[in-house]
Amino acid sequence: MDENHVLIFDTTLRDGEQVPGCKLNTPQKIEIAQQLEALGVDVIEAGFPISSPGDFNSVIEISKNITEPIVCGLSRGVKKDIEVAAEALKYAKRPRIHTGIGTSDYHIKHKFNSNRDNILQRAYDAVAYAKSFVEDVEFYAEDAGRTDNEYLARVCEAVIKAGATVLNIPDTTGYCLPDEYGAKIKYLADNVRGIENVIISAHCHNDLGLATANSIAAITNGARQIECTVNGIGERAGNTSLEEVAMIMKQHPRLNVTNNINSKLLNPISRLVAEKMGMMVQPNKAIVGSNAFAHSSGIHQDGVIKNRETYEIIDPIEVGVDESMIVLTARSGRAALAYRAHKVGHSLTKLELDKVYDVFLKHADMKKEILDDDIHQIIAEAV
Amino acid sequence: MDENHVLIFDTTLRDGEQVPGCKLNTPQKIEIAQQLEALGVDVIEAGFPISSPGDFNSVIEISKNITEPIVCGLSRGVKKDIEVAAEALKYAKRPRIHTGIGTSDYHIKHKFNSNRDNILQRAYDAVAYAKSFVEDVEFYAEDAGRTDNEYLARVCEAVIKAGATVLNIPDTTGYCLPDEYGAKIKYLADNVRGIENVIISAHCHNDLGLATANSIAAITNGARQIECTVNGIGERAGNTSLEEVAMIMKQHPRLNVTNNINSKLLNPISRLVAEKMGMMVQPNKAIVGSNAFAHSSGIHQDGVIKNRETYEIIDPIEVGVDESMIVLTARSGRAALAYRAHKVGHSLTKLELDKVYDVFLKHADMKKEILDDDIHQIIAEAV
Repeated sequence: MDENHVLIFDTTLRDGEQVPGCKLNTPQKIEIAQQLEALGVDVIEAGFPISSPGDFNSVIEISKNITEPIVCGLSRGVKKDIEVAAEALKYAKRPRIHTGIGTSDYHIKHKFNSNRDNILQRAYDAVAYAKSFVEDVEFYAEDAGRTDNEYLARVCEAVIKAGATVLNIPDTTGYCLPDEYGAKIKYLADNVRGIENVIISAHCHNDLGLATANSIAAITNGARQIECTVNGIGERAGNTSLEEVAMIMKQHPRLNVTNNINSKLLNPISRLVAEKMGMMVQPNKAIVGSNAFAHSSGIHQDGVIKNRETYEIIDPIEVGVDESMIVLTARSGRAALAYRAHKVGHSLTKLELDKVYDVFLKHADMKKEILDDDIHQIIAEAV
Repeated sequence: MDENHVLIFDTTLRDGEQVPGCKLNTPQKIEIAQQLEALGVDVIEAGFPISSPGDFNSVIEISKNITEPIVCGLSRGVKKDIEVAAEALKYAKRPRIHTGIGTSDYHIKHKFNSNRDNILQRAYDAVAYAKSFVEDVEFYAEDAGRTDNEYLARVCEAVIKAGATVLNIPDTTGYCLPDEYGAKIKYLADNVRGIENVIISAHCHNDLGLATANSIAAITNGARQIECTVNGIGERAGNTSLEEVAMIMKQHPRLNVTNNINSKLLNPISRLVAEKMGMMVQPNKAIVGSNAFAHSSGIHQDGVIKNRETYEIIDPIEVGVDESMIVLTARSGRAALAYRAHKVGHSLTKLELDKVYDVFLKHADMKKEILDDDIHQIIAEAV
């Protein structure tokens, strides 16, 4: 594999689907999985097979319906989970078992009532057992974000010996700052024996609004897989947004990394996931929000009309949106009014525009948005 | 002022309100401004007075109704705008005029059809003129994110000479990566004569999902004011989220900075702004989304029930949310089911729980969420 290629690991159907209200049935999951394949994701985490019979069945059906991407099933680091995951993945062309255990002292003490040596052994055993079923085993060190780096490195070294192909370093609670998370990835890249033969994966949560920045910090420090979801859905404040990391890599050539995402499908798949899960996307969501390419202040509209790049870094067409929107409100200026008036058939002289603009402002101060119908009325009133 | 104190500059009523559909009337703006004062923001950007008569009037009324925070009015770097801003601020106890001009080559060439020397002179003149009306003048270098650092430093030096008290370095198009934006702030802090006597301000946009990370990068490199909005609303993908930066400073003592925000009011003001503007917040929004403290996967629920800190870095009470939610879905485990069953009056033995859990999973595979009423039914069916 090209050393500058970043794998996109989509967990919309696992970390996303476990969210309150987001449950899907099997046909819905298959439809989304097929669209993820079209989008170009490298890995689809299809579910957590032991969690319920419905989820088990979905992983089987997704495995049958997906060709190119790796299909991954989650398991805790216990035999029964791993066996059920392996069973659910039996039809996958490229199966991966994702297994692991909590490694922070919070988890070791409060969740497992255990100690570091015991957890390290359980991590090794889980990976070795998963390896008896499939070649491709990803290990997660849950709450790695709050795990002591030296101990984390020892765990990573152990699971590599047990056969892990991917090391997932999750910031499970969304606690890390980008410099801190980046430094953690770098520490592992520099100190874990054998790490050059496996892929380091970033799995970030957005509790402090930093999931995307943390994932990019991981990339610049050696990670080559990002775990993310469409629309950034997921447990609590959600996971890293697939659309954001994909576009950052595209917009910033100095990062010197590539990915397989066909960005023109980002908005269609965003709408599909939002609709199927009943999980709406706020208008001011980056890349896929309904306002992401809408301009309403006069200063911005004037700039965009003169040259799109004045206020837009992404051409909307690149992410599957038809065109930038020039929305007329009380903050709009003459340029935007003339632009929209022209679009609905009125070419105004400078003198007419001044008159129409005064009437426009009176109307706009009273309502949220001036629509095409209003423009005709306003012009009739003014001229 | 304490050199580790970070000023929170709220622009919900200016950069937020200019968004499609977010227009407010004057009484609504006064109500939000008063709640921002209660929240503890240091600066309220109340509007853009020259943009419309309604906005002009709102700045006047907010000025009359606000005591502690600085009240700020926006203007382009032209005389008429500055005069109107000064007029609108005449009742403010602590008025600030915010004026400026585009400094990137994109803006200089496409928006102004001008050159660097001319723009530098216009920046100087605008600040000097604003200074003839008020003591506190903030200068914005629009599109600073894409402005050449050496030229930007020259502009900053000029406007400091003209009397600017605050230098706003906006990443207007939301283009910068955190390391790049942080380096820009550091370059200015290191190279602009007189900068030690003024405050550097970060104004970031979220087009790539990096506004919060960029603002924090600015802080660690010397900025001491963050411009932000409630719920991260604003032009296109919005501005930096007030709630995110405030909580990051609180959660990360190693940043060694403080702010005046009363975090317990973050969720109430989020709801107020969302409701008044009709601008909904997605469930997976950090800090203020409805799911921000909801747990639904079995692994997470079990952990949170044993010890909240296993999966939560912020106590929900700290941000004005009553308690963590344990939501029952097909991804929930026995611990969560027993916890919720106990809450509605059923204490189950281990044997009973096993039976009830099987019935629970059958129901949960068929619907999105199991509610309290369902629990009674499921238990009746199973035991």
